[in-house]
Amino acid sequence: MIGVFDSGIGGLTVVRALRRALPEAGILYFGDVARMPYGNKSAATVVQYSREISRYLIRRGAKLIVIACNTASAVAAETIRAELEVPVFDVISPAVEAAVRVPGVRRIGVLGTRGTVQSGAYQRAIAQRGTVRVHALSCPMFVPIVEEGYATTPEGRAMVWRTLRPLASRRLDAAILGCTHYPLLAPVIRSVLPGVTLIDSRSIAREVGRALRGNTGLERACRRQRGAVLEVAVTDRTEHFEKFARRIVREPLRFRVVPQSELDVT
Amino acid sequence: MIGVFDSGIGGLTVVRALRRALPEAGILYFGDVARMPYGNKSAATVVQYSREISRYLIRRGAKLIVIACNTASAVAAETIRAELEVPVFDVISPAVEAAVRVPGVRRIGVLGTRGTVQSGAYQRAIAQRGTVRVHALSCPMFVPIVEEGYATTPEGRAMVWRTLRPLASRRLDAAILGCTHYPLLAPVIRSVLPGVTLIDSRSIAREVGRALRGNTGLERACRRQRGAVLEVAVTDRTEHFEKFARRIVREPLRFRVVPQSELDVT
Repeated sequence: MIGVFDSGIGGLTVVRALRRALPEAGILYFGDVARMPYGNKSAATVVQYSREISRYLIRRGAKLIVIACNTASAVAAETIRAELEVPVFDVISPAVEAAVRVPGVRRIGVLGTRGTVQSGAYQRAIAQRGTVRVHALSCPMFVPIVEEGYATTPEGRAMVWRTLRPLASRRLDAAILGCTHYPLLAPVIRSVLPGVTLIDSRSIAREVGRALRGNTGLERACRRQRGAVLEVAVTDRTEHFEKFARRIVREPLRFRVVPQSELDVT
Repeated sequence: MIGVFDSGIGGLTVVRALRRALPEAGILYFGDVARMPYGNKSAATVVQYSREISRYLIRRGAKLIVIACNTASAVAAETIRAELEVPVFDVISPAVEAAVRVPGVRRIGVLGTRGTVQSGAYQRAIAQRGTVRVHALSCPMFVPIVEEGYATTPEGRAMVWRTLRPLASRRLDAAILGCTHYPLLAPVIRSVLPGVTLIDSRSIAREVGRALRGNTGLERACRRQRGAVLEVAVTDRTEHFEKFARRIVREPLRFRVVPQSELDVT
């Protein structure tokens, strides 16, 4: 099974992409909705939460972990990777890879939560790939705009415009949507940044696909069981999040609430 | 000492009101920023968090607890009050009291988070006081608008307008700002609801004042120590929240990070 986690429900956009790229793979999703959002939390806290969740997923049978949360990818991936015995994928490297491969790319924009942008993880990863200019911008209103259904209202669009205005004059070639919610704002982002290639964290799906195709044992261990329903483990259950989840993933879902005590095991 | 808690930093608006009403009282504030916001969480989770925090405050010397969080007041106050050995005040009853006392009041609006509005706590409390009509509206964008500094921008104001539009034609006499952040949006709310008396959770300060004046022992137990600096205990520490805190309370603050393990004690 592939274990995928995010601070909330937005990481299901990654599950949706994995389903398309790897229809044979079994997936267990974990959304830490009781402690979301991670974007404003300290690095130490995000590392601890990521550790607890990864260990839970492994106990439940995950043979490969995908950190679908950009904030956790930025601040916790290295630590988690060093500690765990299974392969750990984060959403940052595949997005950076896709961005630096845009033909003739010279300027890359990075949009993310405050935590992701301040961590400098995208900026460092891009810098390691050559002399591309990076313009990073934190967009803390984008998650509530998406979650509260303002993505297509004039007021929501106006706020996205105001946030992105500083990037409009930067003549970007590519922009990384460095948060799982942002693909749901792609139309309005495209209208502020016309002609800019948008890259979202779903590029992770291709990388996981390559990893599985290159390792038959791992591919077999991650294969989906017949008739298995996608399980969404959450730390808290509310109707609002379930509706949001069903809007993203259009397949039957089984929700399961994981109490804090099941995460604290050490 | 008076223990005041909120899911985040917004409850410091209550501390500010307490300082004005009771300059002699010692206050210990607790902001559960690692697990905020509460507005979208289930009732069971909010009760558990409120219990942990109240017990922590009592261990630290609180002789009276003020639940500055509207969501926690709505879903956890009754349980907590039954469990604890100190007086527990919530922000709902004093606001309702102030609203029903508005001269000639016939229609009251209630603005709150999704959790607060769905709990029906304000609606029930008002119904118990007579035949006033209640129009409750959840405003989930208001907290991010305030925290991200959009309260006075055209885009933030536009979103507040859009949210409140359904109330504009209700001919309200009073409106309860049922969330600690909302007083910081009072100017724009007033522009959408002109002539409506706005009541905010700071009315709690008057009620606590009355309770202390009526109980000399309690008043003495809550007295401020000479030279004591206001302590803000938080479950996570970030620069963003510290700045926000200093914008609300204009006095020296000492921040202290409380690890999860100090809350789990049973």
